[in-house]
Amino acid sequence: MRAAFYISDGTAITAEVFGHALLSLFPVEFQHITIPFVETEQHAETVLEQIKAHFEESGQRPLVFYTMVNSEVRQLMSESVGINYNFLDQFVAPLEKVIGVPSKPEKHRTHSIHEKTYDIRIEAVNYALANDDGSNLKDYHEADIILVGVSRSGKTPTSLYLALQYGIKAANYPFTEDDMGDILKMPASLRGFQKKLFGLTIDANRLHQIRSERKANSRYASMQQCRMELREVENLYRKEKIPFLNSTKFSIEEISAKILATTGLQRKKY
Amino acid sequence: MRAAFYISDGTAITAEVFGHALLSLFPVEFQHITIPFVETEQHAETVLEQIKAHFEESGQRPLVFYTMVNSEVRQLMSESVGINYNFLDQFVAPLEKVIGVPSKPEKHRTHSIHEKTYDIRIEAVNYALANDDGSNLKDYHEADIILVGVSRSGKTPTSLYLALQYGIKAANYPFTEDDMGDILKMPASLRGFQKKLFGLTIDANRLHQIRSERKANSRYASMQQCRMELREVENLYRKEKIPFLNSTKFSIEEISAKILATTGLQRKKY
Repeated sequence: MRAAFYISDGTAITAEVFGHALLSLFPVEFQHITIPFVETEQHAETVLEQIKAHFEESGQRPLVFYTMVNSEVRQLMSESVGINYNFLDQFVAPLEKVIGVPSKPEKHRTHSIHEKTYDIRIEAVNYALANDDGSNLKDYHEADIILVGVSRSGKTPTSLYLALQYGIKAANYPFTEDDMGDILKMPASLRGFQKKLFGLTIDANRLHQIRSERKANSRYASMQQCRMELREVENLYRKEKIPFLNSTKFSIEEISAKILATTGLQRKKY
Repeated sequence: MRAAFYISDGTAITAEVFGHALLSLFPVEFQHITIPFVETEQHAETVLEQIKAHFEESGQRPLVFYTMVNSEVRQLMSESVGINYNFLDQFVAPLEKVIGVPSKPEKHRTHSIHEKTYDIRIEAVNYALANDDGSNLKDYHEADIILVGVSRSGKTPTSLYLALQYGIKAANYPFTEDDMGDILKMPASLRGFQKKLFGLTIDANRLHQIRSERKANSRYASMQQCRMELREVENLYRKEKIPFLNSTKFSIEEISAKILATTGLQRKKY
Protein backbone atom coordinates (compact mmCIF):
# COMPACT_ATOMS: atom_id res chain seq x y z
CA MET A 1 0.00 0.00 0.00
CA ARG A 2 1.27 3.47 -0.80
CA ALA A 3 2.11 5.62 2.21
CA ALA A 4 0.89 9.19 2.69
CA PHE A 5 2.97 11.25 5.11
CA TYR A 6 1.72 14.40 6.82
CA ILE A 7 4.67 16.30 8.22
CA SER A 8 5.10 19.63 9.96
CA ASP A 9 7.09 21.50 12.56
CA GLY A 10 3.69 22.16 14.19
CA THR A 11 0.77 19.79 14.78
CA ALA A 12 0.54 18.77 11.08
CA ILE A 13 -3.22 19.24 11.26
CA THR A 14 -3.26 21.51 8.20
CA ALA A 15 -1.22 18.95 6.23
CA GLU A 16 -3.59 16.18 7.32
CA VAL A 17 -6.75 18.05 6.42
CA PHE A 18 -5.41 19.11 3.03
CA GLY A 19 -3.80 15.77 2.14
CA HIS A 20 -6.71 13.72 3.37
CA ALA A 21 -9.26 15.81 1.48
CA LEU A 22 -7.19 15.38 -1.68
CA LEU A 23 -6.67 11.64 -1.29
CA SER A 24 -10.33 11.06 -0.46
CA LEU A 25 -11.05 11.97 -4.10
CA PHE A 26 -9.40 8.69 -5.10
CA PRO A 27 -10.91 5.21 -4.73
CA VAL A 28 -7.65 3.89 -3.28
CA GLU A 29 -6.48 3.00 0.22
CA PHE A 30 -3.37 4.64 1.64
CA GLN A 31 -1.32 4.08 4.74
CA HIS A 32 -1.54 7.38 6.61
CA ILE A 33 1.42 8.49 8.73
CA THR A 34 1.51 11.80 10.61
CA ILE A 35 4.77 13.15 11.97
CA PRO A 36 4.27 16.40 13.90
CA PHE A 37 6.86 18.68 15.54
CA VAL A 38 9.74 18.03 13.16
CA GLU A 39 11.67 21.02 14.42
CA THR A 40 15.33 20.10 13.90
CA GLU A 41 17.45 19.01 10.97
CA GLN A 42 18.34 15.90 12.94
CA HIS A 43 14.68 14.96 13.31
CA ALA A 44 14.09 15.71 9.63
CA GLU A 45 16.90 13.30 8.71
CA THR A 46 15.20 10.45 10.56
CA VAL A 47 11.92 11.31 8.82
CA LEU A 48 13.68 11.17 5.42
CA GLU A 49 14.91 7.70 6.37
CA GLN A 50 11.36 6.64 7.25
CA ILE A 51 10.07 7.86 3.90
CA LYS A 52 12.86 6.01 2.13
CA ALA A 53 12.14 2.81 4.05
CA HIS A 54 8.47 2.97 3.02
CA PHE A 55 9.49 3.47 -0.59
CA GLU A 56 11.85 0.50 -0.52
CA GLU A 57 9.32 -1.72 1.19
CA SER A 58 6.32 -0.94 -1.02
CA GLY A 59 8.09 -0.02 -4.27
CA GLN A 60 5.77 3.01 -4.45
CA ARG A 61 6.95 6.53 -3.81
CA PRO A 62 5.20 7.86 -0.72
CA LEU A 63 3.15 11.05 -0.99
CA VAL A 64 4.53 13.67 1.37
CA PHE A 65 2.34 16.60 2.40
CA TYR A 66 4.30 19.06 4.47
CA THR A 67 4.27 22.55 5.90
CA MET A 68 7.37 23.96 7.57
CA VAL A 69 8.18 27.36 9.01
CA ASN A 70 11.88 26.56 9.54
CA SER A 71 13.59 27.00 6.18
CA GLU A 72 16.50 24.60 6.79
CA VAL A 73 14.12 21.81 7.76
CA ARG A 74 11.86 22.67 4.83
CA GLN A 75 14.80 22.43 2.46
CA LEU A 76 15.65 18.99 3.81
CA MET A 77 12.07 17.76 3.43
CA SER A 78 12.02 18.86 -0.20
CA GLU A 79 14.79 16.34 -0.83
CA SER A 80 12.83 13.28 0.26
CA VAL A 81 12.49 10.36 -2.14
CA GLY A 82 8.71 10.77 -1.90
CA ILE A 83 6.48 12.89 -4.07
CA ASN A 84 6.58 16.11 -2.13
CA TYR A 85 3.71 18.52 -1.76
CA ASN A 86 4.76 21.71 -0.05
CA PHE A 87 1.17 22.66 -0.71
CA LEU A 88 0.93 26.03 1.08
CA ASP A 89 4.15 27.50 -0.27
CA GLN A 90 3.17 27.51 -3.92
CA PHE A 91 0.28 29.83 -3.08
CA VAL A 92 2.38 32.24 -1.05
CA ALA A 93 4.24 34.12 -3.80
CA PRO A 94 1.13 34.84 -5.90
CA LEU A 95 -0.75 35.83 -2.75
CA GLU A 96 2.02 38.25 -1.76
CA LYS A 97 1.44 40.00 -5.08
CA VAL A 98 -2.30 40.19 -4.52
CA ILE A 99 -2.08 41.43 -0.95
CA GLY A 100 0.96 43.60 -1.57
CA VAL A 101 2.62 42.56 1.67
CA PRO A 102 5.38 39.98 2.15
CA SER A 103 4.40 36.87 4.11
CA LYS A 104 5.76 36.64 7.61
CA PRO A 105 5.53 33.06 8.80
CA GLU A 106 5.48 32.73 12.55
CA LYS A 107 6.09 29.45 14.21
CA HIS A 108 2.87 27.57 14.89
CA ARG A 109 0.52 30.40 14.16
CA THR A 110 -2.39 28.01 13.64
CA HIS A 111 -3.51 25.30 16.08
CA SER A 112 -1.24 26.60 18.82
CA ILE A 113 -1.87 28.04 22.26
CA HIS A 114 -0.73 31.39 20.87
CA GLU A 115 -3.88 31.79 18.82
CA LYS A 116 -5.74 34.79 20.09
CA THR A 117 -8.91 32.88 20.83
CA TYR A 118 -7.40 29.86 22.54
CA ASP A 119 -8.60 30.73 26.05
CA ILE A 120 -12.07 31.49 24.70
CA ARG A 121 -12.28 27.99 23.27
CA ILE A 122 -11.25 26.34 26.53
CA GLU A 123 -13.74 28.46 28.43
CA ALA A 124 -16.43 27.44 25.92
CA VAL A 125 -15.61 23.74 26.43
CA ASN A 126 -15.91 24.15 30.19
CA TYR A 127 -19.19 25.97 29.66
CA ALA A 128 -20.55 23.24 27.35
CA LEU A 129 -19.67 20.55 29.90
CA ALA A 130 -21.18 22.45 32.82
CA ASN A 131 -24.33 23.13 30.81
CA ASP A 132 -24.69 19.72 29.19
CA ASP A 133 -27.96 17.85 29.23
CA GLY A 134 -29.87 20.40 31.30
CA SER A 135 -27.47 19.94 34.20
CA ASN A 136 -27.36 23.65 34.92
CA LEU A 137 -30.28 25.96 34.28
CA LYS A 138 -28.98 29.20 35.74
CA ASP A 139 -26.23 30.22 33.32
CA TYR A 140 -28.22 30.42 30.09
CA HIS A 141 -27.70 34.18 29.99
CA GLU A 142 -24.07 33.39 29.12
CA ALA A 143 -24.95 31.00 26.28
CA ASP A 144 -24.35 31.89 22.65
CA ILE A 145 -26.79 29.14 21.72
CA ILE A 146 -28.96 26.59 23.53
CA LEU A 147 -29.53 23.35 21.66
CA VAL A 148 -32.81 21.66 22.50
CA GLY A 149 -34.26 18.30 21.54
CA VAL A 150 -35.21 14.88 22.82
CA SER A 151 -32.66 12.60 24.45
CA ARG A 152 -30.15 11.20 21.88
CA SER A 153 -30.85 13.58 19.05
CA GLY A 154 -27.22 14.78 18.84
CA LYS A 155 -27.18 17.76 21.20
CA THR A 156 -24.16 16.89 23.34
CA PRO A 157 -21.56 16.10 20.64
CA THR A 158 -22.71 19.13 18.67
CA SER A 159 -22.38 21.42 21.73
CA LEU A 160 -18.86 20.14 22.34
CA TYR A 161 -17.88 20.55 18.71
CA LEU A 162 -19.17 24.14 18.60
CA ALA A 163 -17.18 24.90 21.76
CA LEU A 164 -13.94 23.15 20.83
CA GLN A 165 -13.73 24.26 17.21
CA TYR A 166 -15.36 27.64 17.27
CA GLY A 167 -15.28 28.88 20.86
CA ILE A 168 -19.07 29.09 20.91
CA LYS A 169 -20.73 28.71 24.31
CA ALA A 170 -23.34 26.07 23.58
CA ALA A 171 -25.64 24.83 26.31
CA ASN A 172 -28.01 21.97 25.69
CA TYR A 173 -31.36 21.10 27.19
CA PRO A 174 -33.19 17.80 26.73
CA PHE A 175 -36.96 17.78 26.61
CA THR A 176 -38.04 14.98 28.90
CA GLU A 177 -41.32 13.51 29.97
CA ASP A 178 -41.35 15.96 32.85
CA ASP A 179 -41.74 18.70 30.26
CA MET A 180 -44.44 16.78 28.39
CA GLY A 181 -47.76 16.65 30.14
CA ASP A 182 -50.59 16.28 27.71
CA ILE A 183 -48.67 18.53 25.43
CA LEU A 184 -45.07 19.83 25.41
CA LYS A 185 -44.90 23.42 26.55
CA MET A 186 -41.89 25.69 26.67
CA PRO A 187 -40.09 24.78 29.90
CA ALA A 188 -39.85 27.62 32.40
CA SER A 189 -36.04 27.53 32.44
CA LEU A 190 -35.91 28.31 28.71
CA ARG A 191 -38.35 31.21 28.76
CA GLY A 192 -36.59 34.49 28.12
CA PHE A 193 -33.95 32.76 26.03
CA GLN A 194 -36.08 31.94 23.02
CA LYS A 195 -33.81 33.76 20.58
CA LYS A 196 -30.95 31.51 21.60
CA LEU A 197 -32.79 28.25 21.04
CA PHE A 198 -31.98 25.90 18.19
CA GLY A 199 -33.88 22.62 17.88
CA LEU A 200 -32.63 19.24 16.78
CA THR A 201 -34.89 16.49 15.63
CA ILE A 202 -34.21 13.05 14.20
CA ASP A 203 -36.10 10.30 12.34
CA ALA A 204 -38.05 8.05 14.70
CA ASN A 205 -36.45 4.88 13.28
CA ARG A 206 -32.97 6.17 13.90
CA LEU A 207 -33.85 7.39 17.40
CA HIS A 208 -35.38 4.01 18.21
CA GLN A 209 -32.19 2.32 17.03
CA ILE A 210 -29.85 4.60 19.03
CA ARG A 211 -31.93 4.31 22.18
CA SER A 212 -32.21 0.54 21.80
CA GLU A 213 -28.43 0.29 21.85
CA ARG A 214 -28.48 2.00 25.23
CA LYS A 215 -31.59 0.45 26.80
CA ALA A 216 -32.94 -2.41 24.73
CA ASN A 217 -36.67 -3.15 25.00
CA SER A 218 -37.32 -0.18 27.29
CA ARG A 219 -40.27 2.13 27.00
CA TYR A 220 -37.67 4.89 26.47
CA ALA A 221 -36.48 3.13 23.30
CA SER A 222 -39.86 2.02 21.97
CA MET A 223 -41.00 3.26 18.57
CA GLN A 224 -44.19 4.55 20.11
CA GLN A 225 -42.34 6.65 22.67
CA CYS A 226 -39.83 7.94 20.09
CA ARG A 227 -42.64 8.95 17.73
CA MET A 228 -44.59 10.68 20.49
CA GLU A 229 -41.61 12.69 21.74
CA LEU A 230 -40.56 13.75 18.24
CA ARG A 231 -44.08 14.82 17.33
CA GLU A 232 -44.27 16.95 20.47
CA VAL A 233 -40.91 18.68 20.00
CA GLU A 234 -41.49 19.36 16.32
CA ASN A 235 -44.88 20.88 17.16
CA LEU A 236 -43.20 23.07 19.76
CA TYR A 237 -40.49 24.20 17.32
CA ARG A 238 -43.16 25.25 14.84
CA LYS A 239 -45.38 26.90 17.38
CA GLU A 240 -42.56 28.85 19.03
CA LYS A 241 -40.77 29.52 15.73
CA ILE A 242 -37.59 27.81 16.92
CA PRO A 243 -35.27 27.10 13.96
CA PHE A 244 -34.58 23.39 13.76
CA LEU A 245 -32.76 20.70 11.86
CA ASN A 246 -33.22 16.98 11.36
CA SER A 247 -29.85 15.50 12.34
CA THR A 248 -30.44 11.98 11.02
CA LYS A 249 -28.28 12.19 7.92
CA PHE A 250 -25.68 14.66 9.16
CA SER A 251 -22.37 14.48 10.99
CA ILE A 252 -21.63 16.81 13.89
CA GLU A 253 -19.44 18.84 11.53
CA GLU A 254 -22.36 19.19 9.13
CA ILE A 255 -24.88 19.97 11.87
CA SER A 256 -22.54 22.62 13.28
CA ALA A 257 -21.93 24.18 9.86
CA LYS A 258 -25.67 24.29 9.21
CA ILE A 259 -26.37 25.86 12.59
CA LEU A 260 -23.83 28.60 11.94
CA ALA A 261 -25.17 29.20 8.44
CA THR A 262 -28.83 29.25 9.59
CA THR A 263 -28.49 31.37 12.71
CA GLY A 264 -25.71 33.68 11.60
CA LEU A 265 -24.00 32.94 14.91
CA GLN A 266 -20.44 34.23 14.78
CA ARG A 267 -17.64 31.85 15.57
CA LYS A 268 -14.86 33.11 17.83
CA LYS A 269 -12.20 31.19 15.98
CA TYR A 270 -11.42 30.56 12.35
CA MET B 1 -10.84 45.08 5.05
CA ARG B 2 -10.36 42.40 2.41
CA ALA B 3 -12.82 39.51 2.60
CA ALA B 4 -11.80 35.84 2.51
CA PHE B 5 -14.57 33.47 1.47
CA TYR B 6 -14.56 29.74 2.22
CA ILE B 7 -17.11 28.02 0.05
CA SER B 8 -18.11 24.42 -0.55
CA ASP B 9 -21.01 22.13 -1.34
CA GLY B 10 -20.03 20.35 1.90
CA THR B 11 -19.11 21.79 5.30
CA ALA B 12 -16.32 24.01 3.87
CA ILE B 13 -14.05 22.83 6.68
CA THR B 14 -11.29 21.85 4.27
CA ALA B 15 -11.48 25.25 2.57
CA GLU B 16 -11.37 26.98 5.95
CA VAL B 17 -8.37 25.02 7.23
CA PHE B 18 -6.42 25.51 4.03
CA GLY B 19 -7.33 29.16 3.51
CA HIS B 20 -6.83 30.10 7.11
CA ALA B 21 -3.43 28.40 7.31
CA LEU B 22 -2.36 30.28 4.19
CA LEU B 23 -3.66 33.65 5.33
CA SER B 24 -2.14 33.24 8.79
CA LEU B 25 1.25 33.58 7.08
CA PHE B 26 0.41 37.23 6.43
CA PRO B 27 0.46 40.03 9.01
CA VAL B 28 -2.89 41.30 7.76
CA GLU B 29 -6.46 41.08 9.06
CA PHE B 30 -9.17 39.63 6.86
CA GLN B 31 -12.92 39.41 7.13
CA HIS B 32 -13.63 35.69 7.11
CA ILE B 33 -16.88 34.43 5.58
CA THR B 34 -17.80 30.75 5.34
CA ILE B 35 -20.61 29.60 3.08
CA PRO B 36 -21.21 25.84 3.33
CA PHE B 37 -23.65 23.62 1.42
CA VAL B 38 -23.72 25.58 -1.82
CA GLU B 39 -25.33 22.73 -3.70
CA THR B 40 -27.34 24.40 -6.45
CA GLU B 41 -26.59 26.82 -9.26
CA GLN B 42 -29.20 29.12 -7.80
CA HIS B 43 -27.42 29.22 -4.45
CA ALA B 44 -24.10 29.73 -6.23
CA GLU B 45 -25.55 32.76 -8.02
CA THR B 46 -26.42 34.42 -4.72
CA VAL B 47 -22.91 33.67 -3.44
CA LEU B 48 -21.41 35.32 -6.54
CA GLU B 49 -23.52 38.38 -5.74
CA GLN B 50 -22.19 38.42 -2.17
CA ILE B 51 -18.60 38.26 -3.40
CA LYS B 52 -19.30 41.07 -5.83
CA ALA B 53 -20.89 43.19 -3.11
CA HIS B 54 -17.81 42.78 -0.91
CA PHE B 55 -15.58 43.76 -3.81
CA GLU B 56 -17.62 46.87 -4.52
CA GLU B 57 -17.76 47.87 -0.88
CA SER B 58 -14.08 47.40 -0.03
CA GLY B 59 -12.50 48.02 -3.42
CA GLN B 60 -10.41 44.90 -2.84
CA ARG B 61 -11.01 41.66 -4.65
CA PRO B 62 -12.08 39.03 -2.14
CA LEU B 63 -10.04 35.85 -1.83
CA VAL B 64 -12.24 32.85 -2.56
CA PHE B 65 -11.15 29.41 -1.38
CA TYR B 66 -13.51 26.75 -2.63
CA THR B 67 -13.97 23.04 -3.11
CA MET B 68 -16.89 21.70 -5.11
CA VAL B 69 -17.89 18.22 -6.16
CA ASN B 70 -20.72 19.40 -8.43
CA SER B 71 -19.12 20.50 -11.70
CA GLU B 72 -21.83 23.00 -12.74
CA VAL B 73 -21.59 24.80 -9.41
CA ARG B 74 -17.79 24.65 -9.53
CA GLN B 75 -17.84 26.22 -12.98
CA LEU B 76 -20.00 29.05 -11.69
CA MET B 77 -17.72 29.66 -8.71
CA SER B 78 -14.71 29.94 -10.98
CA GLU B 79 -16.37 32.97 -12.57
CA SER B 80 -16.55 35.06 -9.38
CA VAL B 81 -15.02 38.53 -9.37
CA GLY B 82 -12.81 37.40 -6.48
CA ILE B 83 -9.39 35.83 -6.69
CA ASN B 84 -10.37 32.20 -6.88
CA TYR B 85 -8.45 29.36 -5.34
CA ASN B 86 -9.86 26.00 -6.37
CA PHE B 87 -6.96 24.73 -4.29
CA LEU B 88 -7.59 20.97 -4.36
CA ASP B 89 -8.26 20.66 -8.07
CA GLN B 90 -4.87 21.78 -9.27
CA PHE B 91 -3.32 18.84 -7.44
CA VAL B 92 -5.74 16.28 -8.81
CA ALA B 93 -4.46 15.86 -12.38
CA PRO B 94 -0.79 15.39 -11.38
CA LEU B 95 -1.85 13.02 -8.61
CA GLU B 96 -3.89 10.95 -11.06
CA LYS B 97 -0.69 10.40 -13.02
CA VAL B 98 1.23 9.37 -9.91
CA ILE B 99 -1.43 7.01 -8.61
CA GLY B 100 -2.42 5.76 -12.05
CA VAL B 101 -6.14 5.88 -11.22
CA PRO B 102 -8.67 8.55 -12.16
CA SER B 103 -10.11 10.54 -9.27
CA LYS B 104 -13.68 9.75 -8.35
CA PRO B 105 -15.10 12.57 -6.27
CA GLU B 106 -18.01 11.55 -4.10
CA LYS B 107 -20.25 14.06 -2.51
CA HIS B 108 -19.10 15.00 0.97
CA ARG B 109 -16.60 12.23 1.39
CA THR B 110 -14.82 14.10 4.20
CA HIS B 111 -16.48 15.51 7.32
CA SER B 112 -19.76 13.75 6.59
CA ILE B 113 -21.74 11.11 8.40
CA HIS B 114 -20.77 8.74 5.58
CA GLU B 115 -17.21 8.53 6.77
CA LYS B 116 -16.52 4.98 7.81
CA THR B 117 -15.47 5.89 11.31
CA TYR B 118 -18.25 8.33 12.14
CA ASP B 119 -20.05 6.09 14.64
CA ILE B 120 -16.73 5.25 16.29
CA ARG B 121 -16.13 8.94 16.94
CA ILE B 122 -19.56 9.48 18.48
CA GLU B 123 -19.10 6.41 20.66
CA ALA B 124 -15.70 7.76 21.73
CA VAL B 125 -17.25 11.12 22.68
CA ASN B 126 -19.87 9.35 24.79
CA TYR B 127 -17.11 7.29 26.38
CA ALA B 128 -14.99 10.36 27.16
CA LEU B 129 -17.97 12.09 28.80
CA ALA B 130 -18.94 9.03 30.85
CA ASN B 131 -15.33 8.57 31.94
CA ASP B 132 -14.46 12.20 32.57
CA ASP B 133 -12.80 13.31 35.76
CA GLY B 134 -12.73 9.89 37.40
CA SER B 135 -16.52 9.73 37.30
CA ASN B 136 -16.50 6.08 36.29
CA LEU B 137 -13.80 3.67 37.34
CA LYS B 138 -15.14 0.43 35.99
CA ASP B 139 -14.81 0.82 32.21
CA TYR B 140 -11.07 1.44 31.93
CA HIS B 141 -10.65 -1.89 30.13
CA GLU B 142 -12.37 -0.21 27.17
CA ALA B 143 -10.09 2.83 27.18
CA ASP B 144 -7.52 3.42 24.46
CA ILE B 145 -5.77 5.84 26.81
CA ILE B 146 -6.27 7.15 30.35
CA LEU B 147 -5.06 10.69 30.95
CA VAL B 148 -3.97 11.35 34.51
CA GLY B 149 -2.92 14.52 36.31
CA VAL B 150 -3.95 17.03 38.93
CA SER B 151 -7.16 19.00 38.67
CA ARG B 152 -7.00 21.63 35.87
CA SER B 153 -3.96 20.35 34.03
CA GLY B 154 -5.84 19.97 30.72
CA LYS B 155 -7.15 16.40 30.89
CA THR B 156 -10.81 16.99 30.03
CA PRO B 157 -10.50 19.12 26.88
CA THR B 158 -7.74 16.84 25.62
CA SER B 159 -9.88 13.72 26.18
CA LEU B 160 -12.74 15.31 24.29
CA TYR B 161 -10.51 16.39 21.43
CA LEU B 162 -8.99 12.91 21.08
CA ALA B 163 -12.49 11.44 20.98
CA LEU B 164 -14.09 13.96 18.62
CA GLN B 165 -11.27 14.25 16.13
CA TYR B 166 -9.69 10.83 16.20
CA GLY B 167 -12.28 8.42 17.63
CA ILE B 168 -9.94 7.55 20.48
CA LYS B 169 -11.59 6.41 23.71
CA ALA B 170 -9.88 8.61 26.26
CA ALA B 171 -10.77 8.37 29.94
CA ASN B 172 -9.32 10.79 32.43
CA TYR B 173 -8.57 10.46 36.10
CA PRO B 174 -7.67 13.33 38.43
CA PHE B 175 -5.25 12.70 41.27
CA THR B 176 -6.82 14.25 44.32
CA GLU B 177 -5.86 14.65 47.93
CA ASP B 178 -7.61 11.36 48.62
CA ASP B 179 -4.90 9.70 46.56
CA MET B 180 -2.14 11.65 48.30
CA GLY B 181 -1.44 10.53 51.82
CA ASP B 182 2.12 11.22 52.83
CA ILE B 183 3.04 10.33 49.32
CA LEU B 184 1.06 9.81 46.10
CA LYS B 185 0.73 6.13 45.29
CA MET B 186 -0.83 4.54 42.25
CA PRO B 187 -4.59 4.56 42.91
CA ALA B 188 -6.16 1.10 43.09
CA SER B 189 -8.55 1.84 40.21
CA LEU B 190 -5.64 2.49 37.83
CA ARG B 191 -3.65 -0.62 38.68
CA GLY B 192 -3.66 -3.11 35.85
CA PHE B 193 -4.01 -0.29 33.32
CA GLN B 194 -0.54 1.16 33.62
CA LYS B 195 0.26 0.75 29.94
CA LYS B 196 -2.69 2.97 29.07
CA LEU B 197 -1.70 5.84 31.35
CA PHE B 198 -0.44 9.15 30.06
CA GLY B 199 0.40 11.91 32.51
CA LEU B 200 -0.14 15.64 32.16
CA THR B 201 1.65 18.17 34.27
CA ILE B 202 1.72 21.96 34.21
CA ASP B 203 3.83 24.78 35.64
CA ALA B 204 2.84 25.67 39.20
CA ASN B 205 2.39 29.35 38.33
CA ARG B 206 -0.02 28.57 35.55
CA LEU B 207 -1.95 26.06 37.66
CA HIS B 208 -2.21 28.60 40.47
CA GLN B 209 -3.57 31.15 38.00
CA ILE B 210 -6.15 28.76 36.48
CA ARG B 211 -7.34 27.54 39.86
CA SER B 212 -7.52 31.07 41.23
CA GLU B 213 -9.95 31.98 38.45
CA ARG B 214 -12.19 29.18 39.70
CA LYS B 215 -11.74 29.51 43.46
CA ALA B 216 -9.83 32.61 44.42
CA ASN B 217 -7.86 32.50 47.67
CA SER B 218 -8.70 28.87 48.32
CA ARG B 219 -6.24 26.31 49.62
CA TYR B 220 -6.96 24.44 46.34
CA ALA B 221 -5.58 27.40 44.37
CA SER B 222 -2.66 28.28 46.63
CA MET B 223 0.87 28.14 45.22
CA GLN B 224 1.88 25.85 48.04
CA GLN B 225 -0.86 23.33 47.24
CA CYS B 226 -0.21 23.52 43.47
CA ARG B 227 3.52 22.94 44.00
CA MET B 228 2.92 20.03 46.34
CA GLU B 229 0.47 18.26 44.03
CA LEU B 230 2.67 18.73 40.97
CA ARG B 231 5.74 17.44 42.80
CA GLU B 232 3.83 14.34 43.86
CA VAL B 233 2.41 13.52 40.43
CA GLU B 234 5.72 14.10 38.66
CA ASN B 235 7.43 11.81 41.15
CA LEU B 236 4.78 9.18 40.49
CA TYR B 237 5.19 9.49 36.71
CA ARG B 238 8.92 8.93 37.03
CA LYS B 239 8.65 6.10 39.54
CA GLU B 240 5.98 4.24 37.55
CA LYS B 241 7.52 5.11 34.18
CA ILE B 242 4.34 6.83 32.99
CA PRO B 243 5.04 8.95 29.88
CA PHE B 244 4.12 12.56 30.57
CA LEU B 245 3.97 16.02 29.11
CA ASN B 246 3.99 19.54 30.51
CA SER B 247 0.88 21.13 29.00
CA THR B 248 1.64 24.74 30.01
CA LYS B 249 2.72 26.03 26.61
CA PHE B 250 0.60 23.81 24.40
CA SER B 251 -2.88 23.91 22.91
CA ILE B 252 -5.14 20.85 23.07
CA GLU B 253 -4.34 20.23 19.40
CA GLU B 254 -0.62 20.24 20.23
CA ILE B 255 -1.03 18.10 23.35
CA SER B 256 -3.10 15.59 21.37
CA ALA B 257 -0.58 15.47 18.51
CA LYS B 258 2.26 14.95 21.00
CA ILE B 259 0.38 12.18 22.79
CA LEU B 260 -0.22 10.35 19.52
CA ALA B 261 3.41 10.79 18.45
CA THR B 262 4.78 9.70 21.85
CA THR B 263 2.56 6.71 22.50
CA GLY B 264 2.13 5.46 18.96
CA LEU B 265 -1.61 5.28 19.68
CA GLN B 266 -3.48 4.77 16.41
CA ARG B 267 -6.23 7.16 15.55
CA LYS B 268 -9.46 5.70 14.19
CA LYS B 269 -10.02 8.60 11.83
CA TYR B 270 -7.80 10.59 9.52
